[in-house]
Parts: sequence; structure tokens; C-alpha cells
Amino acid sequence: MAQDHDEVENGFNSSRNDDGHHHHDKKDKNEGEGGKEAEEFSVERAFDGKEVPSWRKQLTIRAFVVSFVLSVLFTFIVMKLNLTTGIIPSLNVSAGLLGFFFVKTWTKFLENSRILRQPFTRQENTVIQTCVVASSGIAFSGGFGSYLLGMSDRIALQSEDTNLGYKNLSLTWIIGFLFVVSFLGLFSVVPLRKVMIIDFKLTYPSGTATAYLINSFHTPEGARLAKKQVRTLGKFFSFSFLWGFFQWFFTAGDNCGFVSFPTFGLKAYEYRFYFDFSAIYVGVGMICPYIINISVLLGGILSWGLMWPLIEKRKGDWYSADLSPTSLQGLQGYKVFISIALILGDGLYNFCKVLSRTLVGLFYQVRTRNASSDLPVAENSSPETAKLSYDDQRRTRLFLKDQIPTWFAISGYVAIAIVSIIVLPHIFHQLKCYHVLVIYLFAPTLAFCNAYGCGLTDWSLASTYGKLAIFTIGAWAGSSHGGVLAGLAACGVMMNIVSTASDLTQDFKTGYLTLASPRSMFVSQVIGTAIGCIVSPCVFWLFYKAFDDLGVPGSEYAAPFAMVYRNMAKLGVEGFSALPKNCLLLCYVLFGAAIVINLIRDSIRKEWARFIPLPMAMAIPFYLGPYFAIDMCVGSLLLFIWEKIDKAKADAFGPAVASGLICGDGIWSLPSSILALAKVQPPMCMKFLSRRTNARVDKFLGF
Amino acid sequence: MAQDHDEVENGFNSSRNDDGHHHHDKKDKNEGEGGKEAEEFSVERAFDGKEVPSWRKQLTIRAFVVSFVLSVLFTFIVMKLNLTTGIIPSLNVSAGLLGFFFVKTWTKFLENSRILRQPFTRQENTVIQTCVVASSGIAFSGGFGSYLLGMSDRIALQSEDTNLGYKNLSLTWIIGFLFVVSFLGLFSVVPLRKVMIIDFKLTYPSGTATAYLINSFHTPEGARLAKKQVRTLGKFFSFSFLWGFFQWFFTAGDNCGFVSFPTFGLKAYEYRFYFDFSAIYVGVGMICPYIINISVLLGGILSWGLMWPLIEKRKGDWYSADLSPTSLQGLQGYKVFISIALILGDGLYNFCKVLSRTLVGLFYQVRTRNASSDLPVAENSSPETAKLSYDDQRRTRLFLKDQIPTWFAISGYVAIAIVSIIVLPHIFHQLKCYHVLVIYLFAPTLAFCNAYGCGLTDWSLASTYGKLAIFTIGAWAGSSHGGVLAGLAACGVMMNIVSTASDLTQDFKTGYLTLASPRSMFVSQVIGTAIGCIVSPCVFWLFYKAFDDLGVPGSEYAAPFAMVYRNMAKLGVEGFSALPKNCLLLCYVLFGAAIVINLIRDSIRKEWARFIPLPMAMAIPFYLGPYFAIDMCVGSLLLFIWEKIDKAKADAFGPAVASGLICGDGIWSLPSSILALAKVQPPMCMKFLSRRTNARVDKFLGF
Repeated sequence: MAQDHDEVENGFNSSRNDDGHHHHDKKDKNEGEGGKEAEEFSVERAFDGKEVPSWRKQLTIRAFVVSFVLSVLFTFIVMKLNLTTGIIPSLNVSAGLLGFFFVKTWTKFLENSRILRQPFTRQENTVIQTCVVASSGIAFSGGFGSYLLGMSDRIALQSEDTNLGYKNLSLTWIIGFLFVVSFLGLFSVVPLRKVMIIDFKLTYPSGTATAYLINSFHTPEGARLAKKQVRTLGKFFSFSFLWGFFQWFFTAGDNCGFVSFPTFGLKAYEYRFYFDFSAIYVGVGMICPYIINISVLLGGILSWGLMWPLIEKRKGDWYSADLSPTSLQGLQGYKVFISIALILGDGLYNFCKVLSRTLVGLFYQVRTRNASSDLPVAENSSPETAKLSYDDQRRTRLFLKDQIPTWFAISGYVAIAIVSIIVLPHIFHQLKCYHVLVIYLFAPTLAFCNAYGCGLTDWSLASTYGKLAIFTIGAWAGSSHGGVLAGLAACGVMMNIVSTASDLTQDFKTGYLTLASPRSMFVSQVIGTAIGCIVSPCVFWLFYKAFDDLGVPGSEYAAPFAMVYRNMAKLGVEGFSALPKNCLLLCYVLFGAAIVINLIRDSIRKEWARFIPLPMAMAIPFYLGPYFAIDMCVGSLLLFIWEKIDKAKADAFGPAVASGLICGDGIWSLPSSILALAKVQPPMCMKFLSRRTNARVDKFLGF
Repeated sequence: MAQDHDEVENGFNSSRNDDGHHHHDKKDKNEGEGGKEAEEFSVERAFDGKEVPSWRKQLTIRAFVVSFVLSVLFTFIVMKLNLTTGIIPSLNVSAGLLGFFFVKTWTKFLENSRILRQPFTRQENTVIQTCVVASSGIAFSGGFGSYLLGMSDRIALQSEDTNLGYKNLSLTWIIGFLFVVSFLGLFSVVPLRKVMIIDFKLTYPSGTATAYLINSFHTPEGARLAKKQVRTLGKFFSFSFLWGFFQWFFTAGDNCGFVSFPTFGLKAYEYRFYFDFSAIYVGVGMICPYIINISVLLGGILSWGLMWPLIEKRKGDWYSADLSPTSLQGLQGYKVFISIALILGDGLYNFCKVLSRTLVGLFYQVRTRNASSDLPVAENSSPETAKLSYDDQRRTRLFLKDQIPTWFAISGYVAIAIVSIIVLPHIFHQLKCYHVLVIYLFAPTLAFCNAYGCGLTDWSLASTYGKLAIFTIGAWAGSSHGGVLAGLAACGVMMNIVSTASDLTQDFKTGYLTLASPRSMFVSQVIGTAIGCIVSPCVFWLFYKAFDDLGVPGSEYAAPFAMVYRNMAKLGVEGFSALPKNCLLLCYVLFGAAIVINLIRDSIRKEWARFIPLPMAMAIPFYLGPYFAIDMCVGSLLLFIWEKIDKAKADAFGPAVASGLICGDGIWSLPSSILALAKVQPPMCMKFLSRRTNARVDKFLGF
């Protein structure tokens, strides 16, 4: 399930890549390829005794209750990550685990009390998984940390360009906007699912891995392991939640509490080198491949340890000394635009790479297809699998049993597109109906490209397509007609379609491998998307109202990509005129460097390539500072030590520990933002003062 | 080895009690009684192949080098504990472990490089153990946290009674004082060792346990386990040391750093309820029996949670409202005298109890002895062991082989006593030579009582005898002739003799069980005592010079017993005239309560008695506050959970973890006090402010 919120803002799945073709980073491929290896032992024969329920029976009320609860949980987590650094690890494993645990407890309880109406099947588990993924996907593709927030007055005021247009955020129009754009991806992908999964036999590593997980849970040993994992997850969940709660007490005031702990001294703290005791990023670090953690740290050292201090010395020469520290004409400008350059360089490279592989792959598929018969079951679709295994036969039969008519998908797409074309210009006056129409004409093709590329490489390029929309529609609308806002809105429309398309095809692959019916999957996706369209904006709204400094650099919820997206839109519309001295030069250098680094990664041998850092990951601390990189590296280090001590245990329980840390801290955001809304303030401040300042303060307080 | 520094200031060994007769608190008796059970399997037969070296060969240079290093280490630890809370756990296990480890590494190294002149024997290990115990015992019985510091001008100024006499501390006279008093105990016990160990067959649980440990180390499996334990110890040692180092950076100024972390809020902090992140007391909590940790916590809750807040409400009524907070006329007086009352109540009860048991035991011994033959080997000394086992025969034979002539011991005692009687009045003008003479006439009897009682109960009453000296000699000298100082000095003389006597008899028991020669033990004790007489004052001096607030209540080195001892001396000399209103009444109540609680403990069944708290342990937080009790309970809780998860591992490695935590933090005192002496100040202050104060400070600093 390479959903978009697996990505670090654009190109790489921070957790699932390990299984993918693109980044062969950390782990061996046991999980991703496990499904394939297991086929030789025939997974389906093990399940032979178990009847596959009809698609209606796969959709149970309990499944959707559990899905809703998990959706809220994961939306909080994704939102918190969105609004702090934008690094979002895969929560699929947690979703699978927790979904299994909830329903299993439920059925166990029912079994004990009275006759259970329906046993818990892996199909039902897949339905929960799909629904949660669909709904928490909206929390990412809704752009609450990027394009949507980038439109807001808060960010516009901060980047001092309210003249370029802004839109006051409000809960109603956000929900409306999400409803009209989020279902298109779903309909655009339905007619293609058979092509992708049965004919093309695409890998979809994340989807395969999830299916493997679900299948294994429903075997007896799998259930036992899952139970242990859930217990570990629960322990670390509680720890992480309580730790968040404990930290809260010490945060009365700015720069108070553990989040501003100058672990390496005050000088290092000034340049944001410190460990901020955030359990969520320690967990993220444990899930992310080592190379991503190292890349992030390297990026932090390069920027905050080297470049910014050097540029700061040119203050008064390269840029005016009397600018406000958040002015984009000053140091802040270097930070924002240099990170944009890196992101665009990496994005462009990967776009070209995936596109070329997509085209080559398609060309190959079409040629072999032409050479063979046109029968619906694609025995000959790839020469090496001419003889279908038992598993494949059974899976294909069930996958093709419950069809969703193509006319239904097409008419659904057209109907929603028409509504969308009428509604969207009313929400964003700067976005004209012909802009939307053009997007919708191209969208199915791009959605197909993304879904296909993702199937090959596990790499969803949704936000790259989004950026494409920013630049093209922005330039088309022009700066005088509010091109910045039009661009950002177009980005939203595009991202939602493209991202949903790849997510949902991954889900279909999971469903294929767990014998879940495409129809139940589709219904689950529709319900999940609807849940996401309501829950995500509400959760965002809670954060937005509770934390006034949301989006302010250096604050807890800095939401770095809001500023980055807004400035990308400005760049697209206005050109490079506003940049401070030498900034453009540095941007070119780093844009080029990103491409060169990627080229090196792909040209050298794999065992060396895994030591080359990822430019995309390096770009994030350029703006934010390396503190979260230190958290992540701590997580990484812990896992590394654990693996050295007991590899088997670390592999089995590492993800559970990481998920526990992430979920606990993530869900603490809920009470924390409610407390902030209710104006309940923490009782004390843990302050860090230099010796000299402390002496002054002590004197002032009369100690 | 129930040395005095095992005690919490007076009556109970905090760690070894588990093996003792007196407190059957925590663990099952595996270690303490292990030596006895093992006899049935004949420990000595396992060692049959190994030759016992002559007593001269047991005394190697390497043993004394290692002893010296460990002496310095443990002196630092004991000193730190002395000067913070006065709770000192048994470090015998660490001493045994580390001694084994050092010499083993050394011999291993020599074995590899060239021919090893002499293998490492358990006798040599016992010699190290004895030497370290003798030397670090001085750090306790030297009274650096009690009577000696109680004489100083710092404490006198604080309790506002410089008129009652004080003595400026100086390194030279402290060393001189220790040299003339510390060897007496040694000589007084030498003639009695055969009576105690062979004739009376006293248990000496701690000594037996240590012997068991040493014997087990020198069997192959023992060595493997010891190696693992040392590795664990090393890990936690480093952690604890680095943690101490890390904390240091945040302590620029008063009330800065982790030691003033208001873990449970600022209100609770005000009443000293907080977790102060001190690794040393977490370790102490892990070593101490559960009931001691609970007692300390209960005492803290009773005093700082209940009594002091209630008494504080009577401010202006019970005591004047405009007194300084450290004045003994105010709240501070209640704290000091009520804890004295508890300590004296508990002490008196146990004194009577141990004395009566001693007398009963002696009476029984003498009667059976008269009824039997007078042969040196005491086959018939107790009827149940009429037939000696192989182990006993072999041990007795070797114990009696190397004799120390009685004339040597007696003439040594007399010679040192004469020197002492001449020298002491020159050090303390208030102490007359006839005072000293009287002490020395009674001392051997009291030393015998203490050694015998300790052999029966593992309970050394050294500081109770010391308090006896305070009251008798203090009253004899009288307040006009500096009775306070005379009393404190007499306490020192008495404690040193009595405490050394019981320690060293324990050591002889260890030697008996490990076939170490009494002569080599004696030489090792002499050398150890001499090392202690020089190292302890030097280490104390480092602390005394480095921390100006040593002895100030609420500071890091509060040394609570200095104030307590000084005030006991005052009480003895002056009576109860100075106490604030109702304080005497409360003292009577708690004095009685201490006796009643002890009576209940001893009268009800053992399985219930272990839930009755110890008044002695409850008294310590009365003065200090319950923060260290919270540390100790955290340690206790960790051990409890560990035991729940894996009992075998917790039993094997718990002491190593605890010792690591204690040693690491203890040894960090060395660099920390050197830094303070060198006026190197930490760079920052971690400060805790209430929300309101924080707002004021932020405004002041112009944030």
C-alpha cells in the first residue's frame, strides 16, 4: 500500500521502500517478497478449509466501526506528522495489527458470551485495512501540511505576500473541496485494476507485504505472534502517551519543556542540534530505513552545521542585516528556496526515471499481449508464469467473480467530474472551470501512470504531479489573476486523484492476495474516503484552532511544507526575481547535485548504492533544522543495537515498538489540542538558561 | 561482613539483612544459607585438587594494589552516600566481584604474556575483600557524615550554637585521630576469633554469604557467571557515570538541573516529593530489601506529607513566625528532634534485644562448654554438630594452623591505648585523658558484645554504642566544659572500636570458610585500616573543600546526620530546654511508637512481620524529605518488575546492575568535585518556574 502518506512529501515511501525496487535500503526483502515465496508452499491450500464469504458478508458493521476508530487514530498521527516535519512513515502494519486485534477481541468476547454470528476472516481484515488506508490517506493528500495550509492567511502573512492572494481556511469549504475531488481517483482506477493486477502482474510490494501480513495473522502461529506484537505495541503506546502527557506539564511558555532541551549545549541548540525527546520521531526513525535517517542527518549537518552559519556571516553583504528573521529576503529565503531546489531536482529525476520505466514496461506488456490470445484470464501475459499455480488460479477466479461494470466506473467519474467542475470555481475564484476540465482530461492518464509506476517501484509520485499542476496552472492563470492560489488549488485536485489511484490499486493487490472481493474493496474504499473527507478536516481544524503558532518556523507545529508549497507557487508565477543574492546560484548547484546524486545511486552497484544518501530526505532539515533527524537517528540506533543483540526479536517486534511510540505520541495530540482549546495551560516551565542569564534571572527573582 | 557502613546510620544492614536473622525481608536465603547447604555437598572436596598457599603467599602485591584502587572507589561512594542521606548499602558484593575481575584480568594477561608466578586463589580474593572492607569501613566509622562533621564550625553556625564549642576541621588532625583509634578494634577482637567462630559457631550471615560468593567464583561456572555479572556491572557503571556527567551541564546555579526536577508538580516539590534522577539511589533501592524502601517512603509521607504541613499551619502559635527557616527553634527543630526520637527509640529497643540475646547465648555457650571437654577443637561445642563434616574439619584445621599469639594482641591493644590516651586530649581539649581511659576499659567488652550480637543477628550496633558515649561522656564533661565536643569525640572513639570489631570478626568468618589464614587476614586488615585512615579523610576533604554548601539542609550534600549528632550531644548535655512548643510531646510519642512498632514486629508471625515498617528507616526522610525515598522505590519497583518477568536473571544480575548504578554515580563525584575545586562551572541551568513566574522572567529577559 504505497499510499501518499507513506511518502516524505514527494517521492519516497519512508517505510515500505525496503520492499520496493527503488530503494533497496535496509531490510532484506523477507516481507515484501514473502507473499511470492509463500506461493510455492501454497498459502491458499492452508486456507482451503475456510470458506470465503460472499462480498456482502465481507462488509460487516464491526469492520466499519473498527475502521472508523482506527481512522481517527491514524488521522491524528498523520496530521501531527504533517504539521511538524512532513515525514510520515507507513502505518499499514499498525493498522493491520490493530484492526486484527480489535476485531479478534470483539469476536473472542462474543464467542464467550453467546453464539458468534460470523467468524473473523482475513477478507474482513483486508476490508478494515483498506478503509483505514483510504481514510487516513486523505489526511496526507488533503494537503493540510502543504498546499491547503499554503493558501492560508497565516502563511501568506508570514511570507509577506498577502498581495498574491490567500484564502481564509474554514471547515465547511475544506470538507466540500475534499468531497468533490477525492472520489475521482477511485473511479479512474476501477476499470484498470484487472489490467494492472492480473494481466500485468505488477508487484506492488507494499500491498503484497500487507497481504502477507494479513494472511499470516489468520494462521494459528500468526495469531499468536500478532497477539504478542499487539501487547508490545500496547506497552510502548502507553509509554509514549504518558511521556507526552508528562512533557506537557513543563511547557508553560515558549522554549519551555523537553522539546527545547539543549542536549548538546546552548550553541548547538541555537542551530537546532538537539534531541527533543519526541517519542514519535524515535519511532519514525525505527521504521525508516537506515539510509533515510542518515540522509536526514547529513542534510541537517550540511545546512545548519555548515551552510547557514557561513551564509549568516555574509549578513549585510548577501542580504540586508535589518530584515526580520522570517523574511524570505534574508536567511529564511535561502533555507526555503534551496530546499525547494533539492526537492525539485530529486522529483524531476525520479519523474523521468519512473515515467521511462512505465513506458518501457507498457511497451513490453502490449507487445507480449498482442502476440498472445485475448482470453480474459491472462495465462500467457508474461512468459515465465505460463503455468498458473494453485494459488494464482484460485485468486484470479475469485478476483474476477465479483465484477464492477466499466460503464459504472466511467459514468461515476464523469458525474463527479461535472459536479467538481461546477463547484470548484466557486470555492476558488482564481481557479476557472476550464482549468479544472483540463486537469480532469489528463488526470486518468496520470493516475494510470502513477498506479503503474507504483506497482513497479512502490514509488508514488503524487506530489510531483501536484507540483506539475502548481507550475502549469499557476503560470496559465498568471500572477495578476491570483496564479498562486490557482496553482495551489490545482495541485490539490491533481494530488488527490493521482494519490488515491496508486493507493487503491495497492489495496486491490492486497485484496487479490487475500481473496477479498473487488466489490467489497470498492465499497470499503468509498466509505473510507468519505470518512477521511470528514475526519481529516475536523482533526486539522482542532490543531489549527488550538495552536496559534501553527506554521511559524521554530514552533512545535512548524508545518514546513506549507511555506515551501506557497513559494513554489510564487516561483512558478513570478519567476526568480525575489530571491536574495547568490541564492539562485546555490539553488542551481543543489538542484544539479540532487540529480547527480540520484544518477550515481542508480549507476553504481547496489551494495554501494545503499550508502548514497537521498537528496529528498536531505532537503527536509534544510528548512526545519536537524533536531528531528537526531530523534530519528536515536530510533535507528536503538533498532541497530537491538538487531545486533537479537535479530529475530528485533525483526518481529521492532515495527510493533515503533508503531507503539508513534501511535502513543500521535494520539496524545488529541488531548493536548483539546487542552489548548479549553485554554488549560500547563503549570510550569522547564527553562534552559545560560549561566550568565541564570544569574541575572536569579537576581531578578530575588533568590 | 556486617560492616558498619552497611548500616543506615545505626542499626540495620540495608543489604545483608535479607540473609540475617533479624530482618527476614526480601529474598529467600539462598545466598546467606547457601554456604551451609553447600556443606552437605562438601565445597572443600571440590577444591581438594587446589593447594592452599601459605599465609605469606596469600598476601601478594597485586592483591594490595587492587585493594587500594577499590578502596578509593568505595570510599568515594561511601562518602557521597554519607554526605547525602546517610543510607549506605552493602558494597561487599561489588567489592568481591570487582576484586575477582581485576585480579583475574591481571592473571589472564600474565598467563598470556609469560609464565604466571602464582595462580589467583580464593584466599587471595578474601584478602582483597577484607582489605577493601576494612578501608572503606573507615569512611563510615570515621563519622564524616555524622560526629566529625557535627563538630565543625559549618554545622555549629547553622544550628546557631557556636557557643557550645566547635572544632575547625583539618586534614592533619583527622588522619591522626583515625590512626590512634581505628586499630584498637582490630586488636580487641583477635583473641576472641577462635571463641566466636569455632567454639560458638556463630552464623555471621554476611560473612558466610561473601565466602559463598568467593568460593563460587573460583569454580568454573562461578567464574563464567562472575564475568557476565562484571560485564553488566560495567555497562550500568558507564551509564550511571555518563548520566551524572550529562546532568552536570545543567546545574549552573541553585535549584538547577535534574536534582531539582519537580516530577510531581511544584507543590509536591516544595515538600520534597520529587524524583531527582539520581542513579545512586535507584541502585541503593535495588539492593535494599523492599520493606526498607517502603519504610523510608512511609516515613516521608508521614513527615513531609502530613506532619510538617500541619505543624507549619501552627506557625506563630507553636513557634515564632519570624525565625530563619534553618532555626532549630522553628520547624527545623521539629524535624531534627523528632527524627532523633525515632532513631533513639529504635536503637534502644534493638540494643536491649541484642544484648539480652547475647547474654542468653553466652550463658548457653558457657554451660555446654563446661559440660564438655576442654579440647581445642570444639567437636562438642554444640550438640547438633557433634560429628564434624569433612568441610568443617578441614576448615578448622587450617584456621587453627596459623595462630596469632594472645600476648601480641593484648600488648598491641595496650600500647595503642596508651598512645591514644596521650594523643586524644591534645586533639580535643574538651576530652580528658580519664574519659578516654574509661572508654578503653569498657571498649573490649562492648566490642565483644557487638561482635557476638552481629554474629547472631547480622546487626551491628556500633552507632548505638556511639550514642551511648555521646550521652555518658557528654554529661560527665558537662556543658560548661565543652560537653558537646567531648561527647562527639567520645562517640568517634567508641564507634571506631566497636564497628571495627564486628566487621573484622565477619571477615574472619569469611576467611574460615575460604581457608584463608587468620594471619593473612590480620595483616590485610591492618593494611586496609591504614589505607582507610589516609584515603577517607582525603576524599572527605575533597568534598568539604569543593562544596561550600556541604551540610546545608536542602543542598546536594545535606549530610543530615551531622546536625542530628550535634543535636543529640546538645540534648545529652543541656536537656530539653531549647525545644519548640509541643516538640517534646511529639518526640515522646514517636519514641514510644518506635518501640511499639518493633515490639509488634517481633511478636507477630514472621510472614506478617515482614510487612511492618522499620522505624529507623522511617526516621531518615523526616529530616531530609522523601525525594530519595522515591528514587529508592523506583529502584525497588524496577527490580520487582524484573523479578516478575525473569526471576532467575533478576537474582543473578540485579546486584550487578545496582552496584553499577551506585559505583558509576559514586565515582562521578570525583571529577565533579575536582571540577568544583577548579572553579569550572557548568554552562547552563535547567530551571523550573511556575507559569506566572515564567511569564515575569520572559518579560524581564525581553522575549
